[in-house]
This record gives sequence, structure tokens and C-alpha cells, in this order.
Amino acid sequence: MLDLSEAAADAAADNARVDQTGSPLAAALDALRATLGSGGVLAPGDPAAGFVRDERGLLPARPAAVLRPRSTAEVAAAVGICARYGVPVVPFAGGTGLVGGALPLGTGEQVVLSVRALDRIRGVDAADFALTAEAGCVVADVQRAAAAAGLLFPLRLASEGSCRIGGVVATNAGGSNVLRYGMMRELVLGLEAVLPDGRVWHGLRALRKDNSGYDLKQLLIGSEGTLGVVTAATLRLFPTPRHRAVALLGLPATDALGPLLALARESLDEHLSALEFFTGTGLGLVLEHTSGHRDPFDRRYPGYLLVEAASTDPDGAHLGARLERFLADATGRGWAADAVPALDRPQAAALWALREALPEAERRAGGAVKHDVSVPLGEVASFYRSAERELTSRHPDCTLNAFGHLGDGNVHLNVLAPPEADRAAISALVFRLVAGFGGSISAEHGIGVLKREALAAIREPVELALLRAVKSALDPRGIMNPGKLLAP
Amino acid sequence: MLDLSEAAADAAADNARVDQTGSPLAAALDALRATLGSGGVLAPGDPAAGFVRDERGLLPARPAAVLRPRSTAEVAAAVGICARYGVPVVPFAGGTGLVGGALPLGTGEQVVLSVRALDRIRGVDAADFALTAEAGCVVADVQRAAAAAGLLFPLRLASEGSCRIGGVVATNAGGSNVLRYGMMRELVLGLEAVLPDGRVWHGLRALRKDNSGYDLKQLLIGSEGTLGVVTAATLRLFPTPRHRAVALLGLPATDALGPLLALARESLDEHLSALEFFTGTGLGLVLEHTSGHRDPFDRRYPGYLLVEAASTDPDGAHLGARLERFLADATGRGWAADAVPALDRPQAAALWALREALPEAERRAGGAVKHDVSVPLGEVASFYRSAERELTSRHPDCTLNAFGHLGDGNVHLNVLAPPEADRAAISALVFRLVAGFGGSISAEHGIGVLKREALAAIREPVELALLRAVKSALDPRGIMNPGKLLAP
Repeated sequence: MLDLSEAAADAAADNARVDQTGSPLAAALDALRATLGSGGVLAPGDPAAGFVRDERGLLPARPAAVLRPRSTAEVAAAVGICARYGVPVVPFAGGTGLVGGALPLGTGEQVVLSVRALDRIRGVDAADFALTAEAGCVVADVQRAAAAAGLLFPLRLASEGSCRIGGVVATNAGGSNVLRYGMMRELVLGLEAVLPDGRVWHGLRALRKDNSGYDLKQLLIGSEGTLGVVTAATLRLFPTPRHRAVALLGLPATDALGPLLALARESLDEHLSALEFFTGTGLGLVLEHTSGHRDPFDRRYPGYLLVEAASTDPDGAHLGARLERFLADATGRGWAADAVPALDRPQAAALWALREALPEAERRAGGAVKHDVSVPLGEVASFYRSAERELTSRHPDCTLNAFGHLGDGNVHLNVLAPPEADRAAISALVFRLVAGFGGSISAEHGIGVLKREALAAIREPVELALLRAVKSALDPRGIMNPGKLLAP
Repeated sequence: MLDLSEAAADAAADNARVDQTGSPLAAALDALRATLGSGGVLAPGDPAAGFVRDERGLLPARPAAVLRPRSTAEVAAAVGICARYGVPVVPFAGGTGLVGGALPLGTGEQVVLSVRALDRIRGVDAADFALTAEAGCVVADVQRAAAAAGLLFPLRLASEGSCRIGGVVATNAGGSNVLRYGMMRELVLGLEAVLPDGRVWHGLRALRKDNSGYDLKQLLIGSEGTLGVVTAATLRLFPTPRHRAVALLGLPATDALGPLLALARESLDEHLSALEFFTGTGLGLVLEHTSGHRDPFDRRYPGYLLVEAASTDPDGAHLGARLERFLADATGRGWAADAVPALDRPQAAALWALREALPEAERRAGGAVKHDVSVPLGEVASFYRSAERELTSRHPDCTLNAFGHLGDGNVHLNVLAPPEADRAAISALVFRLVAGFGGSISAEHGIGVLKREALAAIREPVELALLRAVKSALDPRGIMNPGKLLAP
């Protein structure tokens, strides 16, 4: 994460750059009011526009106005007006992003376009194993609509009660079910979007196979609102698992993470739905700073691995037996020192709660310099060791609190640092390590405004030129969420 | 499929258009010989260049020369020279494509660049569940390299003994394992490619999660060589299934396809690896025109469904029991009239052979007007019924021979037609039906040159404009496989 004073300085620079557009902005706002009605264009001070803010309070949010279109046609009309007057548009859905991707830059020059009023589930088709939801639908509501049809929408996120479809598409959200079902890139069958010139792309297909031209939906997924406004998505649904089997392993050393991943895939392959690791440091934080948890083992281990397997098979005993065999193999080979299988649903929930309490425990312990990175699957253990070694030697006052999705190579490499620590130096160290392991500086959370300089620093010029070429091709006037993902 | 005389007319038009470039072409060929050596630039008449042809003999192939670079650096140098002189480049790998995507247009104006000499498997990393192969590697060799490491590269195609990695990436190949493992779009972790200006994009990452910018690899996958030359790919590997269970169902009516798909997913979900259907017409062709097959049932049914489930579980009996339960449910509900489970490996192979013999049987029976289309999963049965009804009424001298991947909504809707039949009218009818069902005119095979006009006719202007914007952004001079996917 970059130093926030830097982001603030950028915001000021952006501000200076766009300031001349005052008069076209006023004309645009007039046209927008005429089109969306006065209730569709909120002034920045309006209490009804208060949802446009950084939930963590780290970044400012000073929009020129907040637009509330109620349909794809209204989104198209609004974007068309902004394009005509050269007014930058910042698409906004749930507002739960962690990199400032949905916040306006500058001071009152960028218009925020909220898709929250597009909150209709247009249809659930059980025969197609598909569902079409508008961009403003809350993810938990989509999960419920799928469940009502006897099926599963598998995206599972801490923020699922407030994040929305437009946002999870625009950021290619992942979460804790990725191992079995993939990220949004794998869950989206089709999209409807308003392009930066106000035209509508009707790409709401429900096809599993379609080799007819470049995959435009993949271009929009994960583009963080810089190529268009997603207005609806057709999403894949799955049969609902009938049984889940969960266990926690205590590891004598984190070295065993590599072989444990291989063994888990070999043993549980089709059924493996989560493989989450955390460390003794993390468990210590949870037990110390949050309540309602207990240590499932009689001693503290350097590492822990939470395993979940799921099956649609009515015969749950078989799944349990496969998990038991995995646990026996893991302990038999010495990769796990102990293992606790959950015997019922509450026990499974208690084990999951340890993993899920980590971010909150960390926050209560004073926060951390956070990094959401990924490395190749086989490198997680050595990446973690390198990070521990380098941090201990260069920042002896810091403690590493790593946790994440072992099955996806996704490590939340968070550093507990005293207030006086050089946070930028810590992040630079982590990003350098990530580059050395062929990894990504943003596994799940995206680039937004907070990581755009880090991305520019880590990527080759050829790749940056390609990203800019794509941006210019789809948004030649640069009005769609400018300053995000790519620095202006 | 379009009338081939139309493609020939296009070729002539392309010819006229590019003919003036004779002199820059000669200069380019001099520079290419100086860079690649004389063995690296084959004249069109050279017998060593004979592999550049349409395997089915339908389309002409008259390259200006055939380039044989031996490394990514040589590919980059060659493309750089072609870019400098404005000479069109046609990337060529296995040459097994079905839409003319890798064949040069015109008469001696386009240079074919073969990646066959880039045939090294750069590395197999079992801990990463990944393998990096150069574009010239034959798919079967990649499967073998994965197997040698105890893992599975799941792409399974009729042409796997001759198609190559560059081609299957460029066409987003699918095949008969898509249901469980996805198409190439899901199997590629990273790419290395030479861009249309000769620069190299080093995108060979082995990451499962990477939200740092637009997904450039997804832009190149399925782009049919129009955005760059893929030189290497990092591919996902999987645990190898220990057991397979196969059965054939005889269906009293094709109406049951929808409920059977839902039941199969519900019953076998994680294990379902293939769900192939064909009709009584198809089985009749196989028994009549190919040898070594026998009808597994004592009567002919209107439809058949081949089901395969696979598992990494050492306990094979459990998989068999799940399949048995599915068969009992399917017959119990009347959706299947009879079912034959394969009791051993040879029986499974014999059932698969019926499905796999269909294209050859059709060819021997006199060929067909072929269509590789897809519709939403729930629509396969009603799409098939509509096609049968419309064809019977408008082309009573034709017979429908449909088969395909039910689990992917992918139908090979082939029409057995007498020589005098209006093939263009038949295809127009099929494409119109496909559009009505929200389907795709090319599920697997791509667009190439044979379907580019059909694509232009079926897609909205906004989408065509987007495709052209992407093409112009990455290939502003239009030298990379021009005339493919998009008409010039």
C-alpha cells in the first residue's frame, strides 16, 4: 500500500489538472438533471449522497455530483452527457473496495455514477444454471435468489452483505470459494455494459462456449470501471453441495505448505473447496483481541491449515472418509503435528471463525501494513520464509501476520508495525520479493488509486503500453474513471 | 459455413488490394533471409513448406514465403521486419483448424510464420501444478510431459496428435473435457507473445489470482492470431483421475435432454467429465459406414447420451455407485428408456468409439453442411426440435445429424444434404435459429475466414465496433493475420 500522503498529493494534482472544466461541468449537470430528474442528481453535500465515501476513512471523496440512474437506458443517457461535456465518470456500486477504485479524485470535478438503483434480478434460469442480475444487486441477495431455485451462486466474500454485482465484476472478486469455483472471471457468462461514449453493449449471453471474436466480457471484468459501466451480468450457478467436511491442521513448520497443497489436491481434488492457512501469530491475535474463540489444540503451532471439502453426494460419510484419510496421511508424513476434524456444523463454524476473525483481530491489535499478493502455488512456503527472513533482518521491530488462500497462491502478507515504522519501505520490500517470485502485487483487491504507482513500477514498459492502448481504444477521451489502475 | 466460392472471391479481392506491395515484400524477404538464415525462409514451392495447406483441401494456401523461426527472439525479429515493410504475417502452428484461420489469403502477398520449431517444453512444475510449453509443442506431447510428472493436462481433442499449443491457445480450443476442466481460456495461466510490432510481451506468469490490470492473456486467447503470435504458454495441470465410469443411455425422446443435464449435474457434479449426445440418425451412420462397432441396445432410440464421470478417489466403487444411481433415476423417471454401464475399460472405449466415429461416418456417408454452434444449457432440446422442424419443412430432402457436448450447450448441428441443396440457405436458417436462441455461431472452431461474414451479420454494430477498436489498438498497421475474424 502506498503512503496515503502520496495519494492525497496525487488528488491535488488531478484537481489542478481538471479545474478548468468548471463551465462544461455546470452545463453537464443541467443536462443530467433534465434527463435523470432532480432526484437522480444529488449535490455532494446531500445526506442521500453520503454513501459515497471511503468506508475505512482513508481517502477523501469529493464528487461534483452523485448520479442515481434507475435503468440501463438512464445510465447510457448519463454517460453520454458526461462524454459530450468531457466530465469524468466514476462508477460506484457497493463501495466496499480496498484500493479507492470507486472514489472520485480531485475536488468536485468527477461525477460519481451509482448503479445501486439497478437492483433487479432479471431472471433465474435453473435449466441454464444461470441467473441475470443488475449491477446494483447485493451479492447476498443474488446468493439467496440462486438458493431459492435450489442452486448455488458460489462467490463467498466477507463483504457479501453489502458489495454489489457491478463491483465484484469490475474488480474480478475472488474470496474463499475460488479453489473450487473460480473468481468472477470464471463465474460471469455474459455482461451488459455502458461504454465510455454512452453506447450500450448487449453481451448478456448465457453460453458456456463461444469462440466468436475477442472475449469482450473478459476485458471489462477486472477493469475497475475504467472501460465502461457494467449494468448487468449473467452468472453461472452450480448444484448446491449437500455435505461439507472441515478440519484444522496444526503444522510443525510452514515448510510443509507445498507438500500439503499437493496432498490435499491429490486426496480431495474435486471436493476441495477451501485451503486456508494462517500462523501461530495470527491465532494468537485472534485469541487475544477477539472473543468467543478457543484454541482447538493443546499447544501453539507455527502454522495452521483449514481444509474444507464439499460434495453434492447424498452420502456424506464418504466425503468424511476422504477427509479423514487426508488427515491421516498428512500427520503420518509429519507435515501436520495434529489435526482436528469438525464433527458437526457448529464445530465447523468455530474453526472457520478463527480464520475469519483474523482481519478484525489484526485491526484491534493496532492494524498492519497490508499486502494482498500472490505467487505460484508451489512457492507459497518459500515466499513466506523469505518474507519472514528479510523483514526480521531489516525491520526487527515488525511482526509478520500472513494468512490467505493456499490453494490459490494468495497470501495476505500483513506486517504488524509500530507507528514510527517506514510503511513505504516495508511495502517496497514486499513488492520486490513478490516480483522475484514471479508474483502479483494485487491478487484480489485490484489496483485502484492506491497501487497504480506500484503497478507502473513493477510491470515492463511493453505491458504498460498494452494496458494504455486498450484503455485508449475503448475510452479515447479518458472520461471513464480516469486516474484509476493507470496513473494519468 | 459460407459458400466456398465466396471465400475464393474474397481471396481474389484481398489479392487485388495487397498486390502493390511487391517491392517492399522483396525487401522484407531479403531482410528475413539475413536474419533467419536461408533455411528459415522457405519459398512457397519448397516441398519443406508443404505443411502449409488446408488439410481438408477446401481453401487455397499461397504464401509469399514460409518463415521458420527457432526461438522467441527470432519470431520477434521476423515480425519486426514484416511490420517495418508492411508485410502481412499469418501465424501457423498445427494447421488443424477448420475455418481457414491459419491460411494466407490472396496469392503470394502474405507471409506464413510457422512456430513449429519452437517445440520445447520449458518446464514442468508439479508443485505449481503448471507446465510451460512453447507454441510448437504438439498437444499430445504436452499431455505426456504432464503424465510423466504424475499430473493431467486435460485438453482432449480429436486432433491432439497433431494440433499444437500456439493453435489451441489462439483458437481457445475446447474438446470433450470442457465440462470438468474448461476450455483453453481456463487452462492458460500465462502467455509469452510477439506483438504486431515485433515487441515481446513476457506474460508467462503461473498465478491463479492476479488482479493487476486488464487481462491481456484473455485478449490473446481466442484471437486467432490477429493480435500477436503466441510463442509460449504456462498451462494448468490437475491431479490425474484414478477411475472413470462410463455409460450410454438410450432416450425415448430428445425432449429429456434438459432434465437429464440437470439430473447429471445434481447426481455427479464434481465428477462429471463428459455428457455427449447424439441421435439415432448418427448411430445409424456409424453402424452403416464404419466398422468394428455394434449397437449396445436391442432397439434404435431417437437419442443417446454418453455419460462419463471421473474421480481421483482411490475408491472406484463409490464412483460407480454414483453413476448407477444416476442411471436408475434417469430410467425411473422415464427420461431414459434403457442404459448400459461400461463394466470395464474396453467396454468404456467401445461406447466412446460410437461417439467419436460420428464425424468419420458422416464423411463417408457423403458429408454434411456443418455448424458448430452453442445455445444456453437449458435450450439444447428445444433448439434441436426447432432445427428439426424448420429443416424438415424447408429442406425436406435433408436430414439432421446433431451431436455434441450437452454439458456445454455445444451442438454440432450437421445437415446431411444432397449435392444440389442450397448450402448457404441451410446455414442461414441455422444461424438465424441460433440467434433466436441467444446462441453463438461458433462454439469451438472460431471465425477465421469462413465465418467472418456470418459474424458481421449476426453481431450488433456496437460489438463489431468494439472488436475493431481492439484490433486497431494492438495492431494499428493491420499486419497480423489480416482478413481473419474481421473482414478487411
